[in-house]
Amino acid sequence: VNFNVSILGSSSALPTSNRYPTAHLVNHDERFFLIDCGEGTQMQLRKNHLPMSKINHIFISHLHGDHVFGLIGFLSSLSMLNRAGEVHIHAHQPLEKYLNDSLKFFDSNLNFKLVFHALSDKGFTMVYEDKKLEIFSFPLLHRIPCCGFLFREKPKLLNLRKDVIEKYDIPNHYRQRIKMGEDFVNVNGDIIKNELLTLPPAAPLSYAFVTDTIYKPYWAKFLADIDLLYHESTFAHDDLKLARQTFHSTAVQAAQMAKLCNAKKLVIGHFSARYSDLSVLQAEAAAIFPNTYLANEGEKHVIN
Amino acid sequence: VNFNVSILGSSSALPTSNRYPTAHLVNHDERFFLIDCGEGTQMQLRKNHLPMSKINHIFISHLHGDHVFGLIGFLSSLSMLNRAGEVHIHAHQPLEKYLNDSLKFFDSNLNFKLVFHALSDKGFTMVYEDKKLEIFSFPLLHRIPCCGFLFREKPKLLNLRKDVIEKYDIPNHYRQRIKMGEDFVNVNGDIIKNELLTLPPAAPLSYAFVTDTIYKPYWAKFLADIDLLYHESTFAHDDLKLARQTFHSTAVQAAQMAKLCNAKKLVIGHFSARYSDLSVLQAEAAAIFPNTYLANEGEKHVIN
Repeated sequence: VNFNVSILGSSSALPTSNRYPTAHLVNHDERFFLIDCGEGTQMQLRKNHLPMSKINHIFISHLHGDHVFGLIGFLSSLSMLNRAGEVHIHAHQPLEKYLNDSLKFFDSNLNFKLVFHALSDKGFTMVYEDKKLEIFSFPLLHRIPCCGFLFREKPKLLNLRKDVIEKYDIPNHYRQRIKMGEDFVNVNGDIIKNELLTLPPAAPLSYAFVTDTIYKPYWAKFLADIDLLYHESTFAHDDLKLARQTFHSTAVQAAQMAKLCNAKKLVIGHFSARYSDLSVLQAEAAAIFPNTYLANEGEKHVIN
Repeated sequence: VNFNVSILGSSSALPTSNRYPTAHLVNHDERFFLIDCGEGTQMQLRKNHLPMSKINHIFISHLHGDHVFGLIGFLSSLSMLNRAGEVHIHAHQPLEKYLNDSLKFFDSNLNFKLVFHALSDKGFTMVYEDKKLEIFSFPLLHRIPCCGFLFREKPKLLNLRKDVIEKYDIPNHYRQRIKMGEDFVNVNGDIIKNELLTLPPAAPLSYAFVTDTIYKPYWAKFLADIDLLYHESTFAHDDLKLARQTFHSTAVQAAQMAKLCNAKKLVIGHFSARYSDLSVLQAEAAAIFPNTYLANEGEKHVIN
């Protein structure tokens, strides 16, 4: 199963000559999810040959322009590409009216149905589920209501040992049941215990997206053992005061969060345009959490 | 005096991996004018090191998204860059309310004053004037109200011949009057005719922006001897029927217009994403009007 995140934009509010406002594309088993949609997201998808038309769910963390301005262009283009069916938007309630008004103003008759889901401000909430994946939202602390998102694979099936299939002559139709934990009963009525037949499943993988927010260690317990944590680092720790004033985090805080979560890997982003050299941010995070990467446009982080 | 046009976006409604929606930056004597503001315009300005903060006037041809979606992001970023004073928007009336509503929705308190000027649908109208330049709007024929824009230098001063200054001992304060056409009267009361003192002025230069529209030869008389004509060529002439249906022009029609105007140079743009090889469009236009160029992102066309 593929599970990866493509960084489409890594800047904070003010884009630079090579950094775009926030957007991530998540691919889980060839289902595609867009998180945030800053201006230029559709161009970044095209430039990186990502399958724009396969996106079914869009999650918008909060209603600041640098996370939303690309949405109407994205939807318009999607429609021109003859996308049909449904496109789901998960965002704070006020966006629904604004989006509908905007589409009307620009005379955009979308080919597909736009289905709006209002994000909750109350705790950990499941916002999406399929056979293999769950997505949760959780409230962060920014100047306006803002949510983080957790993508977590569901517990996987047990692995059926290849050597036992022949040994016990397990028929095809029985194998899925064994993978789900059943014992095997053969034609003679003998019971072969499941633990003799299977190996533990692969661990479910997870990815969390945390922007824009003041440092919120409270959520670490919900993100325990996260495989990939994306955490905003708008500022260096020298600018902690500014981070607090603007309800943002520093690179040190992002790293502390990764450590608290026992994360496997940390990607930091949402960089203020004030830093022309981002190695300062990378270094201060890596001093606390060594496996830290800077978000860079077009880079794909594989979760495994 | 510098007079040039930077192409920021050359695609039609659907951007491609390397073509952005419409936007042009006009520099006349270090005054900067933005025409249209498709998604990504602010990034294109930055990427090409163009002075975003010096733009005082923005002209929006019509209210289709591919000409407007970048405007709110542009204005927000301008404000974050601490732009003060006034920014003038020239567009069709409905944009004023939409823009104000959008800025309010995104809680954007601009640092500068936004001054809105409604475009007229009636004939040739002056929309801007300074000492050296006039800008006119004129209605095109698209699915919704749409304007073209003509940038025309005012008649220039006569050139004072260097050799006569010493010969007739013309004092400094008199020179500007001679450049404006006066004769020279020396201390003895002798009259020296202006034509002995001056050479003809440089011809006023001009640039016209024509998108999105059905072929409108009617306007050629107003664009006579234009130095640079930008004309949309959404389609190749094989797709003339489609061009008519969608109220657009073909490359052949753009070239016909350039010929009718006795243009010096034609730049075609607003290309449909259906053409992966644009040389077809260039070739069919050049067969009629040889000095034809394809609009390409980041290219600067000097008007001289």
